[in-house]
Amino acid sequence: MVALARRSRDAARALAKLDTATKNRLLLAMADNLEKSAGPIKAANARDLAAAAGLSPAMLDRLTLTEKRIAEMAGSIRAVAALPDPVGQTIREWTRPNGLRIQKVRVPIGVILIIYESRPNVTVDAGVLCFKTGNAVILRGGSEAIHSNLALAAALNVSGLPADAITVVPTTDRAALDELLKLDELIQLCIPRGGEGLIRAVAEKSRIPVIKHYKGVCHVYVDRDADLDMAEKIVLNAKCQRPGVCNAIETLLVDAPLAGTFLPRIETALRARGVEIRRDADWTTEYLDLIIGLRVVNGVDEAIDHITRYGSAHSDAIVTRNRATAEKFLREVDSSSVFWNASTRLADGGQYGFGAEIGISTDKLHARGPMGLEELTSYKFVVVGNGQLRE
Amino acid sequence: MVALARRSRDAARALAKLDTATKNRLLLAMADNLEKSAGPIKAANARDLAAAAGLSPAMLDRLTLTEKRIAEMAGSIRAVAALPDPVGQTIREWTRPNGLRIQKVRVPIGVILIIYESRPNVTVDAGVLCFKTGNAVILRGGSEAIHSNLALAAALNVSGLPADAITVVPTTDRAALDELLKLDELIQLCIPRGGEGLIRAVAEKSRIPVIKHYKGVCHVYVDRDADLDMAEKIVLNAKCQRPGVCNAIETLLVDAPLAGTFLPRIETALRARGVEIRRDADWTTEYLDLIIGLRVVNGVDEAIDHITRYGSAHSDAIVTRNRATAEKFLREVDSSSVFWNASTRLADGGQYGFGAEIGISTDKLHARGPMGLEELTSYKFVVVGNGQLRE
Repeated sequence: MVALARRSRDAARALAKLDTATKNRLLLAMADNLEKSAGPIKAANARDLAAAAGLSPAMLDRLTLTEKRIAEMAGSIRAVAALPDPVGQTIREWTRPNGLRIQKVRVPIGVILIIYESRPNVTVDAGVLCFKTGNAVILRGGSEAIHSNLALAAALNVSGLPADAITVVPTTDRAALDELLKLDELIQLCIPRGGEGLIRAVAEKSRIPVIKHYKGVCHVYVDRDADLDMAEKIVLNAKCQRPGVCNAIETLLVDAPLAGTFLPRIETALRARGVEIRRDADWTTEYLDLIIGLRVVNGVDEAIDHITRYGSAHSDAIVTRNRATAEKFLREVDSSSVFWNASTRLADGGQYGFGAEIGISTDKLHARGPMGLEELTSYKFVVVGNGQLRE
Repeated sequence: MVALARRSRDAARALAKLDTATKNRLLLAMADNLEKSAGPIKAANARDLAAAAGLSPAMLDRLTLTEKRIAEMAGSIRAVAALPDPVGQTIREWTRPNGLRIQKVRVPIGVILIIYESRPNVTVDAGVLCFKTGNAVILRGGSEAIHSNLALAAALNVSGLPADAITVVPTTDRAALDELLKLDELIQLCIPRGGEGLIRAVAEKSRIPVIKHYKGVCHVYVDRDADLDMAEKIVLNAKCQRPGVCNAIETLLVDAPLAGTFLPRIETALRARGVEIRRDADWTTEYLDLIIGLRVVNGVDEAIDHITRYGSAHSDAIVTRNRATAEKFLREVDSSSVFWNASTRLADGGQYGFGAEIGISTDKLHARGPMGLEELTSYKFVVVGNGQLRE
């Protein structure tokens, strides 16, 4: 693993020198080569599927690579090629009284380790996002997708790509992962993608900084001054549009003056969509299902208190026509995304216009909330003088 | 320690609500109160000094608090009050095609743990920088300064300050620190300040993200196209102005065509200042002393290779009049600060105009290089809509 990480470190140095045009040309070549390699990719995938007899139908579906899915991956690579390259962008520049010119410039992070479970499309998504940002990537997927992942990485390995830019760890051995997580001198960042158990295990063992995504216990608070038609639509969207994802809500907070009006109405609407309503819920549980906790609170302050106490600081919304109430909520709720009159389901890199999403962070350092290409960069200070000294 | 960290977490929630005017008013009150408390502070300091018989004269000097030093601390608090408050600043804002208005807004990080050695002024500096940015701070200083640190924190604890906003850990017990470093649910960031041994020990044990400052193995490369007078001044400043600090250089790289001209000249000048020159140095050593490694390299590429291989990615400079050579160096040297025609000693928050410096990071995540107030903040996405849903 040390030798593998050293090769990635060397690759990162080569990648940092590539200009945007070269990177985009290589990305388009990867997309073409992926489509051309559909045969060997499907053959490798068939080996994984044959060994995966014990998996649930949902997991088998996620693991399966079809011609259509391969074409979709190629399409997403072409979309990444079309995105602006953050590397080399000047974040800020200024001149000091002594004439020193300082630029804060985006640079790649270095080597990024991605740990994920059964979805082989992460191999392509994470591989190309790291490549676009000039980072070498070490991909460590689940054992049930190992042949698919190796075949996908082989297809990304087009001529002209620096050696070892995109590496799939050839073993899914646990000890090998533990060894990788100790290599903080060679690997700069670790992003685990998967269930809370996986992420906690990685965070526990890693000496490399980890960007984590724990759970999403999200809320909608319907204020006394809400437009009730809008509130109903937002609650139903935030709960029912896709209940199994992190930015779906787990708890609905209804302001006390609405107990006789909005409350029965939304209960009826939720039940009509098959949602189980719990009035005495465990407020910290992420159901990821058609279950909702419902609580009547007395005003925005009680709503903020509830969210601060039980929420996971992921995504929370207020529905109100009252600007002062909304501004208090937006200011005091310390979540990575706070919404006024919109659905929490919009907390997403695509919805925010990032063009691509490498993940969502529930941490507060480096990156918070949806992470796009910029969040895969660091910066350096480029200082130009004409002989300035420290006095 | 859990109870202490919980109180800090509660303090962080109260601090996040304070507006800039209130924070600045409290900072000015802290400065006044610090000066008024000079008596008890000096008495507490005398207890530490009495117990510190074994310390070196340099360490005793750093530990000693005089009326003048207390006045200087008060002055630096007033300077922090005068700095702009990053909290609440909009980093970026944009509108999506569906009308969603998104703002990326700076927010406090939460609870910050500062671990430091014998300098009691860190108690005040770090305390007020964290306060200005709306963070609760837990200060864990060295045992030799414990009474001084407690007295300083008491003086900062002015009326109107949220309880537990600035906490000095009342024990310097090692087990208590180890316990704190496990509380990643309550403490968001750890910044150790001190020698490499302290920082490695903290990084090893911490579950909380750590911003580290390891060593500064910095270089000046004097290119064939350099202005040799400027080169001499920069080399002497970078090595001799204060050799014991991280942004002083350890290695001078001289381009081969200058072996007969600049080389003898700079050797004479360095020796005249008492610098020992090592032509066959261990290139990775941080001397922090009047010792310099000197190597002749063949052009900018060899200089970049040397810096990449042996440097610590802290601060590195090129002296040249050739723009193309300089731009290559600035682009390809992956250090937190890269200089063209200026001294590495300028890599500093004060010199960059940050007004205050909480430390220098040799990491690549969250903060890199000199860290000011902005680096003590995170961000959140504030999203304003008029009923937008996820389709």
